[in-house]
Amino acid sequence: MPNAGLSINLATVRQQWNLREAADACRRHGIAAIDPWRDQVAAIGLGEAVRAIKDNGLAVSGYCRGGMFPAADAAGRQAAIEDNKRAIDEAAAIGAECVVLIGGGLPKGSRDLAGARAMFADGLAAVLPHARAAQVPLALEPMNPMYAADRGCISTLAEMTDLCDRLGAGLGIAVDTYHVWWDPNLEREIARAGTRIISHHICDWLVPTRHMLNDRGMMGDGVIDFPAIRRMIEAAGYRGIQEVEIFSEDWWSRPGDEVLSTAVERFRTVCQG
Amino acid sequence: MPNAGLSINLATVRQQWNLREAADACRRHGIAAIDPWRDQVAAIGLGEAVRAIKDNGLAVSGYCRGGMFPAADAAGRQAAIEDNKRAIDEAAAIGAECVVLIGGGLPKGSRDLAGARAMFADGLAAVLPHARAAQVPLALEPMNPMYAADRGCISTLAEMTDLCDRLGAGLGIAVDTYHVWWDPNLEREIARAGTRIISHHICDWLVPTRHMLNDRGMMGDGVIDFPAIRRMIEAAGYRGIQEVEIFSEDWWSRPGDEVLSTAVERFRTVCQG
Repeated sequence: MPNAGLSINLATVRQQWNLREAADACRRHGIAAIDPWRDQVAAIGLGEAVRAIKDNGLAVSGYCRGGMFPAADAAGRQAAIEDNKRAIDEAAAIGAECVVLIGGGLPKGSRDLAGARAMFADGLAAVLPHARAAQVPLALEPMNPMYAADRGCISTLAEMTDLCDRLGAGLGIAVDTYHVWWDPNLEREIARAGTRIISHHICDWLVPTRHMLNDRGMMGDGVIDFPAIRRMIEAAGYRGIQEVEIFSEDWWSRPGDEVLSTAVERFRTVCQG
Repeated sequence: MPNAGLSINLATVRQQWNLREAADACRRHGIAAIDPWRDQVAAIGLGEAVRAIKDNGLAVSGYCRGGMFPAADAAGRQAAIEDNKRAIDEAAAIGAECVVLIGGGLPKGSRDLAGARAMFADGLAAVLPHARAAQVPLALEPMNPMYAADRGCISTLAEMTDLCDRLGAGLGIAVDTYHVWWDPNLEREIARAGTRIISHHICDWLVPTRHMLNDRGMMGDGVIDFPAIRRMIEAAGYRGIQEVEIFSEDWWSRPGDEVLSTAVERFRTVCQG
C-alpha cells in the first residue's frame, strides 16, 4: 500500500461518489483506509458497504458520527442514546476502529452551554457500556468554538480528555487540526491525551474562510502548521493514520480523482512530522 | 442619564452615521457613552470629534482599536508600534477610558501562530510606557478562535490575563461576550481577571451565523446567556458600562435610531445580571 498512513474521510468526496465508488477509488490511489458516514452506509446498505470495504482491502479508520446527546427533553436525549448504540453496531459491522463523537449543539431555545455539556457527558456515560461490549472505542472530537452553539458544544481537547479521565476505558480522543489548531494549550493537551489519541483528522484553515461550515482547506492551502502538530501527536505516542476530512464546496465541485490525487500528494509533501 | 450603564460602540452604526451624527443620536436616546473607531475620528477630524463628544456630554468607554502587532518584518512591527502610540494619543485627546487592543493575524505567508503571539507580547511591551505616560489603559481583547488566523491571534481570556500578569500596570482586559461565551473556563478566567476588567462589550451569537465577521446579533436574538456573564463580571468587581458592539449587515441596513432604541430596550430587558 503506497499510502499506508493515509485515510480519506468520505465526507471529502460525498458529492462525487457513493461509498462503493469512493472505496474503489481509494484503492486505485493506493490509499489505506476510509472513514464513511452513516448516511453513506445507509445509502448502499450495510451489507454492500461491508463488501465494498472488503473488496478493496481497506481499513476503516473511523465511523462518522455519533455523540450529539443534548436535546430539549428526556425523550430526545434517550433517542440520541439509542441512535448512538446503532452507530456503534454499524461501526462494529464495518470493522471501524472507532466511532467519532461530537458534542452536539444547544437544544432548541436553550442558552445553557454548561447544561449541554453536561448532557453530552451523561449521554456518553449511557452508551459507553454498549461501546465496550462491542469493542468499538469512542473517539471524542472537540470542535472549533465557532460551532459551540449548533454542532459541537465541547470546544477543547482539555474538556474531552477530562471526560476520558472521568469515564475511563472505551474512550479516546480525535484530534482534528481544523478544530484545535488555534488552541494555546495544544501541545500540552495533546501530550496529556497521549495514547488516548485514536483518531487524527487533517484539514487546513483557509484565509479568508468564506463559509462557516463548507470552506475548509486542503492541507497546504491554509495556515495550519501540519508538521508541528504531527510532531506533537507522534510525541504523544500516536503514529497511526492521518485522515483527510475536508468539507468544501470547492473540492466537492472537482472530480473525485483530482481530490484524491491532491490529498495523496499533500499528505506526502505537507503532512509529515 | 436614563441609560447610564450603556455605551454604543460606533461600529454598530457605522453605515448610518458619522461620529457627530452618532454622538447626537446617542444623547437623544439617553445613552451615556460611546466608543468610536479611529477611522470615524479621522473622518471628521480629532477636534470636531472632541467637540461632538463634549457637546453631547458623553463619556468615552473605549477607543477602537490598537494591537495587531504581528508583521512579517521588523519595519512592519515598528510601524505597528508607532501606530499604536498615535492611537493612545488620540484616545487621550478624546478622553477615552482605554484603547481596545486585539492580537492581529498571522503575518502574510506565516503559519507560526506561537510566533505571532510572541510578536503581540513584544509590541505590547514596547507601547506600554507610552500608554502609562498618557494615562490611557490598554484593554486586551481576546477574540473568538475563528479569527485566530486573520484578526486576533490571542483567543482566550487566560492568555490576555497572563500578559497582564507579566507586563503589569497599564493593562486591562476587555470581555466581549461574542468572543468568549464558548470558553469552558469562562467563569474561572473572568474571576482571575478580576478588577483588571476595564471594558465589557456585548453582542449575541446568532444561530445560524451566516458570515464570519458581519453577522453578529443584537442581545436577545442569539444564544448567549447575558445575565450569567454579567453576574460573573460583577462578581469579579466590574460594575461599569456595557458597550454594545455589533458588526451586522442586517443592523447596518436599518435606521440608526431603530438600532439605538433596540439596543436600549435589550440592554434593559436582556442584559442585567
